[in-house]
Amino acid sequence: MTHLPNPTPLDDSLRFLSGRLRATAEALSTEFDKTASERDKRGGNAKRERDMLRESGLLGASVAREFGGAGATWPEILDLVRLFARVDSSLAHLYGFQHLMLATLRLFGSREQWEPLHAGTVEHAWFWGNALNPLDPTTQLAMDASGSDYVLSGSKSFSSGSVDSERLIVSATDAASQKLVVLWLPTDRPGVRVLGDWDNMGQRQTDSGGVRFTDVRVHASEVLTHPGPLSTPFACLRPLIAQLILSNVYLGIAEGAWQAACTYTLQAKRAWITSGVASPADDPYVLARYGEFFLELASARALADQAAVALQASFEQGEQLSSEQRGATAVRVAAAKVASSRAALNISSGIFEVMGARATSARLNFDRYWRNARTHTLHDPIDYKLRELGEFSLLDRLPRPTFYS
Amino acid sequence: MTHLPNPTPLDDSLRFLSGRLRATAEALSTEFDKTASERDKRGGNAKRERDMLRESGLLGASVAREFGGAGATWPEILDLVRLFARVDSSLAHLYGFQHLMLATLRLFGSREQWEPLHAGTVEHAWFWGNALNPLDPTTQLAMDASGSDYVLSGSKSFSSGSVDSERLIVSATDAASQKLVVLWLPTDRPGVRVLGDWDNMGQRQTDSGGVRFTDVRVHASEVLTHPGPLSTPFACLRPLIAQLILSNVYLGIAEGAWQAACTYTLQAKRAWITSGVASPADDPYVLARYGEFFLELASARALADQAAVALQASFEQGEQLSSEQRGATAVRVAAAKVASSRAALNISSGIFEVMGARATSARLNFDRYWRNARTHTLHDPIDYKLRELGEFSLLDRLPRPTFYS
Amino acid sequence: MTHLPNPTPLDDSLRFLSGRLRATAEALSTEFDKTASERDKRGGNAKRERDMLRESGLLGASVAREFGGAGATWPEILDLVRLFARVDSSLAHLYGFQHLMLATLRLFGSREQWEPLHAGTVEHAWFWGNALNPLDPTTQLAMDASGSDYVLSGSKSFSSGSVDSERLIVSATDAASQKLVVLWLPTDRPGVRVLGDWDNMGQRQTDSGGVRFTDVRVHASEVLTHPGPLSTPFACLRPLIAQLILSNVYLGIAEGAWQAACTYTLQAKRAWITSGVASPADDPYVLARYGEFFLELASARALADQAAVALQASFEQGEQLSSEQRGATAVRVAAAKVASSRAALNISSGIFEVMGARATSARLNFDRYWRNARTHTLHDPIDYKLRELGEFSLLDRLPRPTFYS
Amino acid sequence: MTHLPNPTPLDDSLRFLSGRLRATAEALSTEFDKTASERDKRGGNAKRERDMLRESGLLGASVAREFGGAGATWPEILDLVRLFARVDSSLAHLYGFQHLMLATLRLFGSREQWEPLHAGTVEHAWFWGNALNPLDPTTQLAMDASGSDYVLSGSKSFSSGSVDSERLIVSATDAASQKLVVLWLPTDRPGVRVLGDWDNMGQRQTDSGGVRFTDVRVHASEVLTHPGPLSTPFACLRPLIAQLILSNVYLGIAEGAWQAACTYTLQAKRAWITSGVASPADDPYVLARYGEFFLELASARALADQAAVALQASFEQGEQLSSEQRGATAVRVAAAKVASSRAALNISSGIFEVMGARATSARLNFDRYWRNARTHTLHDPIDYKLRELGEFSLLDRLPRPTFYS
Repeated sequence: MTHLPNPTPLDDSLRFLSGRLRATAEALSTEFDKTASERDKRGGNAKRERDMLRESGLLGASVAREFGGAGATWPEILDLVRLFARVDSSLAHLYGFQHLMLATLRLFGSREQWEPLHAGTVEHAWFWGNALNPLDPTTQLAMDASGSDYVLSGSKSFSSGSVDSERLIVSATDAASQKLVVLWLPTDRPGVRVLGDWDNMGQRQTDSGGVRFTDVRVHASEVLTHPGPLSTPFACLRPLIAQLILSNVYLGIAEGAWQAACTYTLQAKRAWITSGVASPADDPYVLARYGEFFLELASARALADQAAVALQASFEQGEQLSSEQRGATAVRVAAAKVASSRAALNISSGIFEVMGARATSARLNFDRYWRNARTHTLHDPIDYKLRELGEFSLLDRLPRPTFYS
Repeated sequence: MTHLPNPTPLDDSLRFLSGRLRATAEALSTEFDKTASERDKRGGNAKRERDMLRESGLLGASVAREFGGAGATWPEILDLVRLFARVDSSLAHLYGFQHLMLATLRLFGSREQWEPLHAGTVEHAWFWGNALNPLDPTTQLAMDASGSDYVLSGSKSFSSGSVDSERLIVSATDAASQKLVVLWLPTDRPGVRVLGDWDNMGQRQTDSGGVRFTDVRVHASEVLTHPGPLSTPFACLRPLIAQLILSNVYLGIAEGAWQAACTYTLQAKRAWITSGVASPADDPYVLARYGEFFLELASARALADQAAVALQASFEQGEQLSSEQRGATAVRVAAAKVASSRAALNISSGIFEVMGARATSARLNFDRYWRNARTHTLHDPIDYKLRELGEFSLLDRLPRPTFYS
Repeated sequence: MTHLPNPTPLDDSLRFLSGRLRATAEALSTEFDKTASERDKRGGNAKRERDMLRESGLLGASVAREFGGAGATWPEILDLVRLFARVDSSLAHLYGFQHLMLATLRLFGSREQWEPLHAGTVEHAWFWGNALNPLDPTTQLAMDASGSDYVLSGSKSFSSGSVDSERLIVSATDAASQKLVVLWLPTDRPGVRVLGDWDNMGQRQTDSGGVRFTDVRVHASEVLTHPGPLSTPFACLRPLIAQLILSNVYLGIAEGAWQAACTYTLQAKRAWITSGVASPADDPYVLARYGEFFLELASARALADQAAVALQASFEQGEQLSSEQRGATAVRVAAAKVASSRAALNISSGIFEVMGARATSARLNFDRYWRNARTHTLHDPIDYKLRELGEFSLLDRLPRPTFYS
Repeated sequence: MTHLPNPTPLDDSLRFLSGRLRATAEALSTEFDKTASERDKRGGNAKRERDMLRESGLLGASVAREFGGAGATWPEILDLVRLFARVDSSLAHLYGFQHLMLATLRLFGSREQWEPLHAGTVEHAWFWGNALNPLDPTTQLAMDASGSDYVLSGSKSFSSGSVDSERLIVSATDAASQKLVVLWLPTDRPGVRVLGDWDNMGQRQTDSGGVRFTDVRVHASEVLTHPGPLSTPFACLRPLIAQLILSNVYLGIAEGAWQAACTYTLQAKRAWITSGVASPADDPYVLARYGEFFLELASARALADQAAVALQASFEQGEQLSSEQRGATAVRVAAAKVASSRAALNISSGIFEVMGARATSARLNFDRYWRNARTHTLHDPIDYKLRELGEFSLLDRLPRPTFYS
């Protein structure tokens, strides 16, 4: 599909966006769309498109105006993520995680740390990569001989956006305390080796391969210890931002698949031989399936938008944020996560039912929606999100903060 | 269950309500709850509870303040419907349809007609019954010999709230034009016979039996011809109000069933013998089922609330309402209808899985949630609502106004 | 519905039955059908129908020919259960459990014990009740002062078929060993008090209320200790027989609901107003729903029939039965149990979608299919059956014998 | 996965096979498995594996012993299809359609036509391609000037197995009567051009591209007119064989996906961080998902096996086959088709939930199960199969024979 239909009167996902930011993102999205299918087949790093993002100024969209950014709210950022995900869910993921990395500095670090990095991101159009993966326990951060700096060693898998990045967020185990620490680094720091070895069935241009750290020097000022990871309710918003970015990527995939199917069905000429109708668009079963797509999209969108509003309200509380408000936001995010995962999986597979056998041509590459959805919805298990929702539903128990909830 | 848990931080359904109206409704709801199970078994007319509604002043809640009412918006009215439906979905239906009848006067009739009737409803606490059923074609309205009045003959089925009503809204076929006309009548007008023959497996106190009309005199001023039924986009809001009242009744049933199950599970002592956990509230499968309940409720609630807001915005347009805005509201209402129907059916049946065999005791009467949901969700077929959603999703086609869409 | 359609060419459920047994059962089923709805409303003991079963000779159907019985195989017995369940799932349960009680004597007891009891059942048309409920731990069996007999005290809930029974199977905790023992008793033994207090939302004539034992004398010869409960693979067939009887009751409920719906739809005259077809039987959505009913029934039937054949093969092994063959049979039974539970729940609720609002009239009593299915499928949790299937699927682990698997 | 687990005690799919045929097929399957993933990525013609099939003697398995074949029954052939499909659903499809082509000669042609072609297939190990596609109406067969032979022109899409075939079955429109005719041809007949242009997202080695016919001479003896296509109930078995081959391909895909998942889960070391268990194989949610896989496989298998037995019984009737028996077989086949389609789609997507994010590595190529299932289950719409089942369920109406039912 090379063309996006106009937003319908019900397209809630567009309601947050306005002005220059929106226009820029739409123009980029149109460009991304032209090559998304071909780049999916190729895999690897989307250098050209990443540079377009750099040049667009959108990398600093979430940075406050006082530091040169656009001061976009979370609902606005998430809407851009969803917009990109309709045509290219790899770039959408990278774009969303750019803002997760900026938020990580803000949430885990001190004002002295995050302010210059936010400003620098706007000024230099830095792309941030994510080497924060708490399930890889082997990366160690040790005090060096001098007693003032640190040395980082080990490796990380699933480091989205690591290739062609200027900066990295990294998690490690502190050798002394055996606790998890989070730090940032310039990607070109000696000893950092970005492997660029991501080759998966979906989300093929997220550069989510490994990063190896060999005796990498880390300055104390680069370690985010005040307040530190998951230390306060406010710091605990980090996983919620991550989860809601994922949810909007899933939603965008579902919307993109639905749009592709609509275009295809409307051009299809032959209804099924025993249907008794003139065209697929009159087929009662085709229409019922589109009705189900609509309902699943509308439900997931409503939950995702509610969660985005709740996240913004929590974020604006800063360090005043209570555990209760953070927890209530976590529940909303979890609901959005499950609903959008299911929508993405069901719709990206279900569209074939309304398109028929000819839609499986490799040239059309319509399977990429499912491959992207299937890959990305495995980030963390949906069954445990449901359990969290059940604990809240039955027991009023708020989700315990982890890097996944 | 004799006790309703406090609203949780996520209980969106309560967000519209405030003040005196809310407090009155909550007090009534507590009273209704005490006898709801017993009255379900008995069936027939809930005379005592209907009189409590009359005395409460809530019958005129949607009447504008200038005519003595509370000026409640549709989101507020629908929230009261949902609140009542948690404990008694028959009374909730009657209460919702009271306001549908008042809206019918407003939407189909002239200012000269509806203003005094709205004011009279507040003043005299009239309960309105609904004998508007376009699928019963036998009721005829004919000009009488004098040429100024009319005579009404025939009968109506499914006339909710007809027993113990002061006023009725009636549909009939105009003998001259063969078109559908809608009129109002005092229930005690000679020749009107309310049969009181409703005896169904669910919604047992909705008094939805038949009404027979034998040569009933109808004055021209009682026929709602300006603008008349489904005549303008604004008049076409009537079915949307009806459908959204139903949706909120369904939602309330689902919420009530869920609340009953929570209370039961939390009191249950014995986990399943091979579960390896101490109590049902720790059982991973029980928690996953509660997670599904939560998600289905949250989705349906979000869609119903969005639809309520859209309805209010459309309603406030009055005769300026465009077909497009009416149509977009209709799509939202249809989505809420399907989602709430499914939530009510799935949750009212699914709660037994988390409660177990002892919860089937007739004394507990937990099957009434499903009987109510199953009965009421058949108002009009869900399959055709899905088709409407599909037509919008694929073809941008807005629902064609009928008495059901 | 007062009439059963002829079996279709695909009606596998009838393939096992033949001859006199079948004709007798069909005649009884026709009689049961006439009053089933009315008796559902009444609840309590189906004395007249139980006596018809006594007189029919069908109570001894599973007794070997050498002891005067019909020598029916398990597939044959289960088919009778399913046949009865189509019209009356309470009587079907009682009839199935009659044969479970006879099998319990055979599986847990010595030849000296079960032979005369089997013969006596045929001769005197004894109806057996089931007071074997291992989840009620309070019933105690203690050696009496003489050292030769026992004394039984305590009470049992869920004792299906206890009212109007001649004999009971009872479980108790042995006071000395604290192990579960199983014994039989004449129901009129002094100190046995059948409470007749079953009053549940479904399966209303199964007499599944409580039994209280007050210093009841039990002879050593009445305690089934050789080989004893769940002692050998052969003895461990008892729960499989129970589970497969339940499965066939569920299947019969689903078939009965489907038959009632077919009859109703074929008589219905009015298709939905926007359907564009002449009658409900032409409606594409109605047909798709019947297609789903068919598929779910066909699947569950196939699994239940395979399990019945496997059960018979295991049963015929007698004490030579291996744990492996018993386990493989248990897996088949578990699959049949889950599939038939779901079929019964989905179809007994789903039929209303193809029948519409008028089918909710209390007079028709169509909700009894769902009430029966919902009540009976809670016998033990389906989630743990799925877990068993998963353990077999992933780990080749056979179900561990308990009274539920 | 390079290793197939041993069949479990419940593996019904193996029960038909025995002896040499089975051993040969198993050996081939092991070979196919080694390269299946790599060949999926490559696409195009599986020349080496097709030659292995030629050399194995399995191409003539369904040919009667009197003509040199193995005289395999349909249950046996379908079991080989399922066996191959577990590791390579493209080869399974080609192998199944080989026997469909042989059956087409038998069902549509005269004894004089099919006997030598069956014998020749065994003798020369001919691979047959399928250019019978009634939805491509442009291929025309016209009497040539001489009045004795014909000329074939036009093209066919979806001609499975056309590349590297020795013989083709072709459908065309008879220029004189405008009716569909079916004929056979040597693939190397002048004017036949096999395009080899199949490049789809799944089933990538089925060579299902186009064939172009340019003034191809066809002898009268090559046109299958006695009894001709879909002419008698026996001839109408052709689409049932096709549909049941598809069903067994779907089932094999589902079984292969499940096997791959089992192997992966059993090797996985890390359970989810909040699961509280030691390994994924202990996770209650993982086990429940495996339980669902088992149930869906067992149901679809049971229906497919019943259908295979019914097909064989119908086939053995020859021209004595009644419309009723053919219709009853069609219903069974339709049920198997829907159940196996769903099993293949659900399981090939669902396995990722039990394997987690690392299973999306392109190296593992686990998405091929879904790509194959998704592509192949679109052969003809499942919604219309459900409608057929509904028509039978409600109306006792047997499916009307077409090339798809």
